[in-house]
Amino acid sequence: MVRYNKGANAERELIHKLWDLGFAVTRTAGSGSTTLPAPDLVALGKTKKLAFECKAWKSSYLSLDIAQMEEQMEWCERGNAELYIAWKVPREGWLFLHPKHFNKTPKFYYISRKNANKNGVKLEVILGQQATLK
Amino acid sequence: MVRYNKGANAERELIHKLWDLGFAVTRTAGSGSTTLPAPDLVALGKTKKLAFECKAWKSSYLSLDIAQMEEQMEWCERGNAELYIAWKVPREGWLFLHPKHFNKTPKFYYISRKNANKNGVKLEVILGQQATLK
Repeated sequence: MVRYNKGANAERELIHKLWDLGFAVTRTAGSGSTTLPAPDLVALGKTKKLAFECKAWKSSYLSLDIAQMEEQMEWCERGNAELYIAWKVPREGWLFLHPKHFNKTPKFYYISRKNANKNGVKLEVILGQQATLK
Repeated sequence: MVRYNKGANAERELIHKLWDLGFAVTRTAGSGSTTLPAPDLVALGKTKKLAFECKAWKSSYLSLDIAQMEEQMEWCERGNAELYIAWKVPREGWLFLHPKHFNKTPKFYYISRKNANKNGVKLEVILGQQATLK
């Protein structure tokens, strides 16, 4: 329950951040209400189509089930949207991660915190409001 | 409760229809869970960004509160999305309506069934899969 609440709070925080930056944002209804998978948050800008799967984990790695990740990838393929795994590390902040930076095992996609710190993208860069430095 | 269930069933039906036609679809979480307004359904195609506010009413008119309609219009303005009011008339089918076809009073936007029948757009036209005949 603690993890659930942390996740819900993190989502809410991200929704408001995206809204304040001028995006239209929607939070997906719980998976019980529909059999079709969709990312936790979808944010639309004038040209951008963004999808976020949100996780609030205090851990040295983050993992997603194969099915969970690949359903999100299919969703984004259909909608021509960019997918980010949004990892909220309690008391540290957000890491926005491309699926390509995850390793794949037969059961999971995972990334270490070290690699997440290295490969995470800033929200402002994702939103196209700040150029990448690379 | 009957009206609620009809509305939820209608939404589910539309989600599956959009999904079957190749779109990425998300159903917005209930308004209790976030203070930010968003349309009931958001559907993304390769280039399309569509938002649907769904109503299942068996009546000779359809009305939306001023705030409800204008919040959806603002959402779509931010996200550069097309807004449709999706009116499911029980045992008759769907009418997809542009906000511009509604009349405005100090408290409501409304449209008669007659005008809805006249101005409703087919889903296939909205999705860009069939040219309009006009």
